[in-house]
Amino acid sequence: MEINLDKYRNLSRHLGREYINLNPIQRGGILPVEAKKVIYEYWDGYSVCDYCGGRLDEIRTPPIYEFLEDVSKFLDMDISRPTHGARESKFIVMHSICKEGDYVILDENAHYTSYVAIERARLNYVTVKNDGYPTYQIEPERYKEAIDRLEDEGKSIGLILLTHVDGSYGNLSDAEKVGKIAKKRRYPFLLNCAYTVGRMPVKGKKLKADFLACSGHKSMAASGPIGILSIREEFAEEVLRRSKNHPKKEVELLGCTSRGVPLLSLIASFPYVVERVKKWEEELKKTRYVVDRLEEIGFKQLGMKPKEHDLIKFETPVLEEMSKRNKRRGFFFYEELKKRGIGGIVPGVTKEIKISVYGLTWEQVEYVVDTIIEIVEKC
Amino acid sequence: MEINLDKYRNLSRHLGREYINLNPIQRGGILPVEAKKVIYEYWDGYSVCDYCGGRLDEIRTPPIYEFLEDVSKFLDMDISRPTHGARESKFIVMHSICKEGDYVILDENAHYTSYVAIERARLNYVTVKNDGYPTYQIEPERYKEAIDRLEDEGKSIGLILLTHVDGSYGNLSDAEKVGKIAKKRRYPFLLNCAYTVGRMPVKGKKLKADFLACSGHKSMAASGPIGILSIREEFAEEVLRRSKNHPKKEVELLGCTSRGVPLLSLIASFPYVVERVKKWEEELKKTRYVVDRLEEIGFKQLGMKPKEHDLIKFETPVLEEMSKRNKRRGFFFYEELKKRGIGGIVPGVTKEIKISVYGLTWEQVEYVVDTIIEIVEKC
Repeated sequence: MEINLDKYRNLSRHLGREYINLNPIQRGGILPVEAKKVIYEYWDGYSVCDYCGGRLDEIRTPPIYEFLEDVSKFLDMDISRPTHGARESKFIVMHSICKEGDYVILDENAHYTSYVAIERARLNYVTVKNDGYPTYQIEPERYKEAIDRLEDEGKSIGLILLTHVDGSYGNLSDAEKVGKIAKKRRYPFLLNCAYTVGRMPVKGKKLKADFLACSGHKSMAASGPIGILSIREEFAEEVLRRSKNHPKKEVELLGCTSRGVPLLSLIASFPYVVERVKKWEEELKKTRYVVDRLEEIGFKQLGMKPKEHDLIKFETPVLEEMSKRNKRRGFFFYEELKKRGIGGIVPGVTKEIKISVYGLTWEQVEYVVDTIIEIVEKC
Repeated sequence: MEINLDKYRNLSRHLGREYINLNPIQRGGILPVEAKKVIYEYWDGYSVCDYCGGRLDEIRTPPIYEFLEDVSKFLDMDISRPTHGARESKFIVMHSICKEGDYVILDENAHYTSYVAIERARLNYVTVKNDGYPTYQIEPERYKEAIDRLEDEGKSIGLILLTHVDGSYGNLSDAEKVGKIAKKRRYPFLLNCAYTVGRMPVKGKKLKADFLACSGHKSMAASGPIGILSIREEFAEEVLRRSKNHPKKEVELLGCTSRGVPLLSLIASFPYVVERVKKWEEELKKTRYVVDRLEEIGFKQLGMKPKEHDLIKFETPVLEEMSKRNKRRGFFFYEELKKRGIGGIVPGVTKEIKISVYGLTWEQVEYVVDTIIEIVEKC
C-alpha cells in the first residue's frame, strides 16, 4: 500500500481567518470565542460520555440535559433532541410519522435536502409553487389548494413542510398562516428553520409548528454537523419511540446522535445566540443598507422586498457586462474581491450573486459595499 | 422566557486532561496534536465548503477526495464515504440493500446500535449465539446453521452482519471465515469495525467483507461524530444511488454527511493512525501484561484468551468482596483510582470492570497496574 500522507499534514484554511466571508451558508456558523474555548476541552472523540448513563440527552455533565430543556423554552416548543443537522431532523420526522407512499406538501423554495429526505423515506410529494420572478414568494393559500387537490384525489397526506427562510432568495415565509392551515386540516406541520433559528427570533407554537428542524452549523454558531429537532409533546411518543430490544434507546436517533465538539460548541454558543437574535432588527438594517447601496450601481435584489432575512440574492447584469470585456472573464469579480480581503462568493459567476453580511460590524459592512462599488466603477 | 445561561459559560472537562482514562470507548478517539492544530483552522460550521462544487466527497481543498481514496486503499476496499458514525454506516447499508422485512443474521455480541439500525430499517433478525461464559466466543459455523434454518423456512435473508471486535468482551471474531460463508451462500457481508479500524490492521477484501462500518470518534483518533462506510464496487450503485430530483446528491447520505471539525480531525489524524496500526503487536503486549498482572490478584479476564484486542473485561470478585466491608460501598474503587489520577471506570460497579490501556506508554501501563494492585492490597 503506497499512500502519500504528507498532503494531510499542516492543513490550513485561509478564507475563515484572513477574509471577510460573504457566503450566506457560512455567516451564521462562525464561532464566538466561548465556543472556541470549549473545543479545547472536548475535542476527543467520546468526550461527552464521561458521565453518561445510557442516553446522550440525559447527560448532566456537561449540561446537555439542561441545554435541551432551555432550547425548548428558547424555541417555544416542548421537547428537543440533538440531531446531525436539519436534514437529519427532517428525515427523522418523515420516517417516523409518515407511512411509505404518503404525500408531503412542500414549497418550491425548499432546500434540496427536503426532497432527498422525502426520497430516502420513500414518500411522494407535491410542490406549492412560488409566484415566480422577481419575488419568488410562497403564498400560504396555495397550501390549501394543494391539500384540497390531494384530498379530492384520495391521496394520503403525511406532512406539511415549509421552508421558513429559503437558501435561494432569503424569503421569509408566512409560517403562521401555513401553520393555521395545517392545524385546521389536522395535518402535522414541519418548519425548516435551518436559516432562521439562531439568527432571528423563532417561536414554534406561535407559528403553529409541530416540528422545528434547526441547524447548528448553519445558524447557531456551532461547529458542524449538528442540528436540533424540536417537537410538540403530542408527537413525542411517535418520533422518539424506544427500541424493543434496548428500551432506553430512541430508534430514530439510532441511540445517540451528534456528540463531542459539535454539541459542545452548540451549547457554549447558546448564551451568545440568545443575545444575538435580540439584535435581529439591526442585522436587517445592515442587509437593507447593502441592498440600497448596491441597487444604485445596477444590482437588482431578487426575492421579497424589503428584506426580512440576511441572505441576499442579486441579479448583476452590470457584472455580466463587465465580464465580457475582461480577460479574466467571470473570474475578475471574485479575484478583485479577494485582492481586497473579501471572499465567499462563487468564483466565475457574474449573472447572479448571493451574499450575506450577517454578524459583520457596520464598519465591515461599509467596507464590503464600498469595495464592490469601487470594483464596478473602476475595473 | 427565563433561562439561566451562566451554566453554559466556561464549561471544562477534567477527565481528559488530568486523568489517565481507562474507558475503552474513549481510548481510540484521543486526538494527536496534528488533529488539534487543524481544529483551529476549521472550527466554523461550514468551513469545509469554501471550495465545494456540490459534493462533500469531491472537495479537493481541503483534500477530502484524496483522503477517501487513500482510506479505501488503507482498508483494501473500493469506495469510501464519510458518515456520521458506524451506526449510520450500518443503517445506510441495511436501508439501501435490504427489503423491508428481510432478515439480518448477526452475532449475539453485536453492539446495540446494530439492533436499533435493524429496527429503524424495519427488518427482522436472527442472532448467532456466542458460546457463553467465560469466553463468549462467536463460532463462524453457526452462521451457516442460521442461514440453513432461515432458507429452510423460506425467509428472505438480506444481510450477514458480524461485529469484528465487540464492546462487551473485546473478542476478535474470525471475520474471514464468516466472510467465506457469506460469499459462498451469496449474501452481502457487513463487518462492524467500530473497535478495530484505526486501532489494528484491517483489510476488507482479505476478510471477504462487502462493507466496513468504521468509527472515527471510537477508533480513528477523530472528534466525533464521524464514521467511514467503505464498500465493494459491486454495491456502489445501490448504496450510493443518486436522487431523481438532484442527480448529484446521494440519497442515503442525504447529500452531505459529517463535515467540519469531525471530518478534518479524521483527515489530520490519518497519517498518525496509519502509523499506529503498525504498532498493534506492542499494544497487545501491553494488554496481555495487564491481564497477567491483574489475574495474579484475583481478577479474572472474560472473553477469549489470549487477548487479541485492547478492550479487557474482568470479573472482579475481589473488589466485590471489598465493597461489602467498605463504607463507600462499590464507589471505593472508583474514588481510590480518582485520587491517584486514574479515571474512566464506571463508578459504583465492582462485579465486573472494563478497561483499556490502548495508546498509553509502558510507564503509564505499569502505573495503572501497580495502582490497582496497591488499592486491592491496602484498602
